[in-house]
Amino acid sequence: MAEQVQDDTISRRRLLGTAGAVGAAGLVMGGGAGAFAADAVRDEPAALSGVGETERMFHGKHQAGIADPAQACGHLLAFDLAPGADRKAAAALLRRWSATAAELMAGEVPRGDDTGIALDAGPSALTVTFGFGRTFFDRTGLAARRPVALQPLPAFTGDALDAKRSDGDLWVQIGADDPLVAFHAVRLLRKQAGDAVRPRWQMTGFNRTPGATARPRTGRNLMGQIDGTNNPKPSDPDFAARVFVPDDSGDWMAGGSYAVVRRIRMLLDSWDHLSLERQEKVIGRRKSDGAPLSGGTETTPVDLDKIREDGSLAIAGDAHIRVAAPESNRGAAMLRRAFSYQDGVLDDGAPDAGLLFVAWQADPRKGFVPVQRKLDRGDGLSRFLRHESSGLFAVPGGCAPGEYVGQRLLEG
Amino acid sequence: MAEQVQDDTISRRRLLGTAGAVGAAGLVMGGGAGAFAADAVRDEPAALSGVGETERMFHGKHQAGIADPAQACGHLLAFDLAPGADRKAAAALLRRWSATAAELMAGEVPRGDDTGIALDAGPSALTVTFGFGRTFFDRTGLAARRPVALQPLPAFTGDALDAKRSDGDLWVQIGADDPLVAFHAVRLLRKQAGDAVRPRWQMTGFNRTPGATARPRTGRNLMGQIDGTNNPKPSDPDFAARVFVPDDSGDWMAGGSYAVVRRIRMLLDSWDHLSLERQEKVIGRRKSDGAPLSGGTETTPVDLDKIREDGSLAIAGDAHIRVAAPESNRGAAMLRRAFSYQDGVLDDGAPDAGLLFVAWQADPRKGFVPVQRKLDRGDGLSRFLRHESSGLFAVPGGCAPGEYVGQRLLEG
Repeated sequence: MAEQVQDDTISRRRLLGTAGAVGAAGLVMGGGAGAFAADAVRDEPAALSGVGETERMFHGKHQAGIADPAQACGHLLAFDLAPGADRKAAAALLRRWSATAAELMAGEVPRGDDTGIALDAGPSALTVTFGFGRTFFDRTGLAARRPVALQPLPAFTGDALDAKRSDGDLWVQIGADDPLVAFHAVRLLRKQAGDAVRPRWQMTGFNRTPGATARPRTGRNLMGQIDGTNNPKPSDPDFAARVFVPDDSGDWMAGGSYAVVRRIRMLLDSWDHLSLERQEKVIGRRKSDGAPLSGGTETTPVDLDKIREDGSLAIAGDAHIRVAAPESNRGAAMLRRAFSYQDGVLDDGAPDAGLLFVAWQADPRKGFVPVQRKLDRGDGLSRFLRHESSGLFAVPGGCAPGEYVGQRLLEG
Repeated sequence: MAEQVQDDTISRRRLLGTAGAVGAAGLVMGGGAGAFAADAVRDEPAALSGVGETERMFHGKHQAGIADPAQACGHLLAFDLAPGADRKAAAALLRRWSATAAELMAGEVPRGDDTGIALDAGPSALTVTFGFGRTFFDRTGLAARRPVALQPLPAFTGDALDAKRSDGDLWVQIGADDPLVAFHAVRLLRKQAGDAVRPRWQMTGFNRTPGATARPRTGRNLMGQIDGTNNPKPSDPDFAARVFVPDDSGDWMAGGSYAVVRRIRMLLDSWDHLSLERQEKVIGRRKSDGAPLSGGTETTPVDLDKIREDGSLAIAGDAHIRVAAPESNRGAAMLRRAFSYQDGVLDDGAPDAGLLFVAWQADPRKGFVPVQRKLDRGDGLSRFLRHESSGLFAVPGGCAPGEYVGQRLLEG
């Protein structure tokens, strides 16, 4: 995409001088609207680090923001179609949004954008991912094409769901390693939505800043626990089968995935009252390095049958990693790609903090639903968690240049 | 501080291998509480980037978090003393907090900390800064020692203040380039506060991630405008006089500063309706590069008298940079060190986003107050801003090892 600088866009990175100041001076926006002068940043040094330079591809078989690593900043947004907005309006919106997402992810300034918020930053691993909620299909006359997998999630004992912060016709996930690049995408998509949709809810989260730690992959959550060790990895032979709807499904969802989104508040004051040993027993892993209590290092496979010298199970019967393990759920697994959140303090002084849990799977009935059913009954961790909101979204496959996300549904 | 590894602490960076795995293996925590094994992270690569490695000094003439650059993540917290908590309890709390802040800023794990949240990250430029609100002095029997400069801020026309999110007995500013390092500090200070204080309010903000842009110093705010260009710089001859209480004041506040804290919501939907040209006229600077409309580049001094060919002022009469300029305020200036915030959407769908404005000065009566009085009357920008909360805090000077912040007040 970096090469596809069209005459109505301008590459932020070129402006920044990474393509040379002389080259930049020749690039100006086609229209009069939002005409940032190319000489504006001519005297800036060309010194983006990897953080700013990292670029994810918008076009492709799958949407970005699923198999790539979760970024330092994330926004989850849900919208409802405005009364009167129909399938045609939705298609026009997805076309606009897709074009803008492609430009932003390539580090370009879309025509007419004079917000300037991200003008001098690199793409910073920006991804924009679009999904459809169950209600979208009724409102657009597409109920007949609603996937069977998109049935409502069952109620769980541990749920304390706020309907206002749950569900939604449309869902957008925005992630970037720079918070202003992420915010810029939020603003532009909102502006472009115009009157077609109304904001339903919006949540903001974070992960570790690149370079703050030497740990290669997995981050920590706000309980201090290394999280995501046992995630399916893109190099696994069954990764695609677990995460993406098969190509031969013949469905508009081919190449797509289903996102389960849960705002999970952590009862951190209670959690912190447990001793380290007790916390590790609840999880089943050492806190310091994520190694399973059955031995080894973080990446050592968990031995659920391991018996300690005193005759007890190394991984307790209600340990989180036992109850969540594929072996305990007939192989069910999902790709978790979460953000932590911290929204200040609640009225009682407790931290309003936890996990914006986003889990990806080819079919939630074979991923999140069976695993969460089991966790709901038997997970020692569940009494320290409160599920406060919930959503399930059908996330179509990616699109080719000139197409838009959801086109096979909306024009099929 | 990196060298001051005491026998009850353990350096995260040493564990990470930057001091060598052999050295790390010899370091274990003195007590049994929260004993993270030193071998836990032995096999980690030693590859922290500058983001993680950057260390700010806790001990010194001034507290950190004032003259050093604002970090990528910030938390502002206010506490009220619990009923019954007196001067002695406050002194004990500040002693605990100071010791913990010193350890955390040096990248060490305080004794008994088994939260683990930041275990494998470097110090990431963490700063922890403590201040006292006006009410603190009444509640601790210290009203006679309350500085004259700590009088209530006047009411401004543009204020729409929420008392619940304003003021407070104690104020803590936490900043770090990594959000988990920052969150870890929040958690530990809250835990250590015990029953001595009650959380009053807490806000979270952000700045650009290091490496996302090649711009050297000044960042953009959520209006897209480069912000902070005209800030006093540590290299300015009058920097210390503007920002810090003089050494020869003979006061417990010598070496300290006053922080004005305002949550300023930006009316971004209205702002975005203005053309780029109009936005630039409101501010007085070009959006693209921050150059004043009187000419030059970002760092060119503003020429408030410059007349354009058509006879109009290059910097409009109500332009923000004219009304805020020291020349317009008898030399009054302050050091702005802000974070942006984005807290989702309001009930009407508008973004709940803006600036966590933190301004530092030797005396607010010669800094924020006269400037804000002028802005309140004549600033073209003010109709796009809503001041939603406000606080003024006396931030004592720094302390030497073995001392704590505020000791000269609390034991003087």
